[in-house]
Amino acid sequence: MNITEKILSNAYGKEVSPGEIIEVDIDLCMSHDGTSPPAIKTFEKIADRVWDNKKIAIVFDHAIPANTIGSAEFQKVAREFAKKQNLTNLYSHGEGICHQVLPEKGLVEPGKIIVGADSHTCTYGAFGAFSTGMGATDIAMVYATGKTWFMVPEAFKIEITGKLNGITTSKDIILNIIGDIGSDGATYKSAEFCGDTVDNMDVSSRMTICNMAIEMGAKNGIMEPNKTTLEYLSNRTGKKINSFNIFKSDKDSVYEKEFVFDVSELEPQIACPSDVDNVKPLSNVLGTHIDQGFIGSCTNGRIEDLKQAALILDGNKVHDDVRLVISPASAEIYKIAIEKGYIQTFIDSGAIVCNPGCGPCLGGHMGVLSAGEVSISTTNRNFKGRMGDPESEVYLSNAYVVASSAISGYIEDPENISQSLNKY
Amino acid sequence: MNITEKILSNAYGKEVSPGEIIEVDIDLCMSHDGTSPPAIKTFEKIADRVWDNKKIAIVFDHAIPANTIGSAEFQKVAREFAKKQNLTNLYSHGEGICHQVLPEKGLVEPGKIIVGADSHTCTYGAFGAFSTGMGATDIAMVYATGKTWFMVPEAFKIEITGKLNGITTSKDIILNIIGDIGSDGATYKSAEFCGDTVDNMDVSSRMTICNMAIEMGAKNGIMEPNKTTLEYLSNRTGKKINSFNIFKSDKDSVYEKEFVFDVSELEPQIACPSDVDNVKPLSNVLGTHIDQGFIGSCTNGRIEDLKQAALILDGNKVHDDVRLVISPASAEIYKIAIEKGYIQTFIDSGAIVCNPGCGPCLGGHMGVLSAGEVSISTTNRNFKGRMGDPESEVYLSNAYVVASSAISGYIEDPENISQSLNKY
Repeated sequence: MNITEKILSNAYGKEVSPGEIIEVDIDLCMSHDGTSPPAIKTFEKIADRVWDNKKIAIVFDHAIPANTIGSAEFQKVAREFAKKQNLTNLYSHGEGICHQVLPEKGLVEPGKIIVGADSHTCTYGAFGAFSTGMGATDIAMVYATGKTWFMVPEAFKIEITGKLNGITTSKDIILNIIGDIGSDGATYKSAEFCGDTVDNMDVSSRMTICNMAIEMGAKNGIMEPNKTTLEYLSNRTGKKINSFNIFKSDKDSVYEKEFVFDVSELEPQIACPSDVDNVKPLSNVLGTHIDQGFIGSCTNGRIEDLKQAALILDGNKVHDDVRLVISPASAEIYKIAIEKGYIQTFIDSGAIVCNPGCGPCLGGHMGVLSAGEVSISTTNRNFKGRMGDPESEVYLSNAYVVASSAISGYIEDPENISQSLNKY
Repeated sequence: MNITEKILSNAYGKEVSPGEIIEVDIDLCMSHDGTSPPAIKTFEKIADRVWDNKKIAIVFDHAIPANTIGSAEFQKVAREFAKKQNLTNLYSHGEGICHQVLPEKGLVEPGKIIVGADSHTCTYGAFGAFSTGMGATDIAMVYATGKTWFMVPEAFKIEITGKLNGITTSKDIILNIIGDIGSDGATYKSAEFCGDTVDNMDVSSRMTICNMAIEMGAKNGIMEPNKTTLEYLSNRTGKKINSFNIFKSDKDSVYEKEFVFDVSELEPQIACPSDVDNVKPLSNVLGTHIDQGFIGSCTNGRIEDLKQAALILDGNKVHDDVRLVISPASAEIYKIAIEKGYIQTFIDSGAIVCNPGCGPCLGGHMGVLSAGEVSISTTNRNFKGRMGDPESEVYLSNAYVVASSAISGYIEDPENISQSLNKY
């Protein structure tokens, strides 16, 4: 069996196979300020008390601090629900983006079943958990019963091999994969990422890849946890590594499809307007005019991404005609970025440093585009209107490329912003 | 003659007296992202080129980064105008709130005539300039001609005497004055602040007082620049102090009214919902429930205010049920606050640190209130709906009180949050 089948079998209590519909207990259920109120509304029609006040996490991240009266009302509903139900995991103080906050707070463990009312819930696959996004109505049922059903997914084995060079990152790997497989190429599949590149990857890079599994339609993204990941989880949960429920795919696991991506020669990849799978190598889009850059989100707002941006921005200025918005993925990352001097570098460069949150990624606030404007962004989606007006456009890339482009005013090769790449 | 009459006489080229209508040359004309587009629209009906591309400052602060497609469009209009007219003072990269940015960038000098499409333009009176807010249509005329008309105001002499103690600040002084004079008590008057307290005040505290002159209806707030202020201006403008046009009121100046406020026994003052002149001593409102605290704005977002907040928050946590939003008044202040460790203290306490801007003060974004919610805020206005829903409420205070209240969950005496007041 592969890792996803093993986790689901463990949860179901007996061996499962693809296509089978199973009901399982949920280990952790997440919703945010945008999705909690509709879930709560449904929940309150069917139950009085949540199934487990310690297994529900609510994170305010989509409009934090509240950007409208409506979002303030949504947060009020969620805050009152958390209080009434005595939820122990309410993060309403700007702790960060849900998919960053949950692992940071020690709520994610390998082998667990995690659902969230947010499509990028697949991120926790980086830690060897089965995690997937669901609609608010399904989440309401989980609030009430602690259970949900899945059809056991067929799996794609996506082997990644080779050592990344220079300014190419795990974001470029996943963009390259999505460009190849297509935005609906893995619909309802388990996207299992493996290979030497994944085995040697840091936690942040792994999260970026699993985070975007949904962008090719996958039910979940999953990786076997490596040593670095297990040490991270041990630190966060306060548990010993040998207490985790670690599953690994058998050598004879069956996959619907198998892919091999050799990334040793990969150059930075850009998802061009207005499809996430409209992926081109950086060299094909150099010189494209931009109005805004955004560095942040659950995909690429971690300290490693901010370091990339700082390396590029140090000693340079954001172009007069460009605004560069930077939002760390969590308050913890924000503080580390201060300690390392990145935030100071950003301010000196003329970037706007916002509090942690999802805002600009979804055109919510803190960097909305008007008609005709173009953003290059470290985020995960670039469909028509994603970051503002339907006539605006979004290019997706890694943080090196966003920072470099913000300096030049057009999509730029980081190699051309040369002076500081060995500085930190 | 008093200082305002002297500045206006100097600008007019001959002696003026109250009630007289004069046309004068403008030394500096400011508009922001909210008011520039309507001014530009009118300007373009009457002229092709601005009168002086070096004397117009446009600052993006009201919705930065853009919170809606509409605000992104407004900023686009302003950005394109600045480019077309070759304006040398466009601050579109989140440099901060206009009334902080202009002095910081060395655009404010004593004796100058400064107009701005923002009512708190009266702030620059702290530097001995005549400065006042105007509507966008009047600003359009200034863009085109560099001139405007004023009726020379009658003056109120407001003497402030005594040494402030402990947790009482210049914000409490001006709230006390407004409570006494009333929100329309100084309509179209020149509010001249003088006395030993003002003479000994730092720049930040002086700005807070002049900033709120408009809250009692004054045409301008004004102070003779003291040594500290002149040194600040010299550093910012790169000019020698003796090159400034410094005006002082004659001993025999005529005032419509004279006031004396002895502040040596003053306790912190709170402007209660929903009028800025509904001012009560802190002791009268202790225990009032709050949902949100906000520290920032052109009134109290400077490093001295952030220091007050840091003193209180250090080692403490924001109450579970409260969100505390903190936004430095400028990028420069933000950086200093990082150097001093304040931002780190804020993050540790559970405050949400936002980029510099006006957002929450006017219910624009980054801390909007829903119906029934209550904020305590270092800002300047608390009329019905100012920070969000018409059924929300705002209390105005200094930063010590906001920070203390955010910890307790109700309006709190900073003396009760005792441990750290001598720490920095």
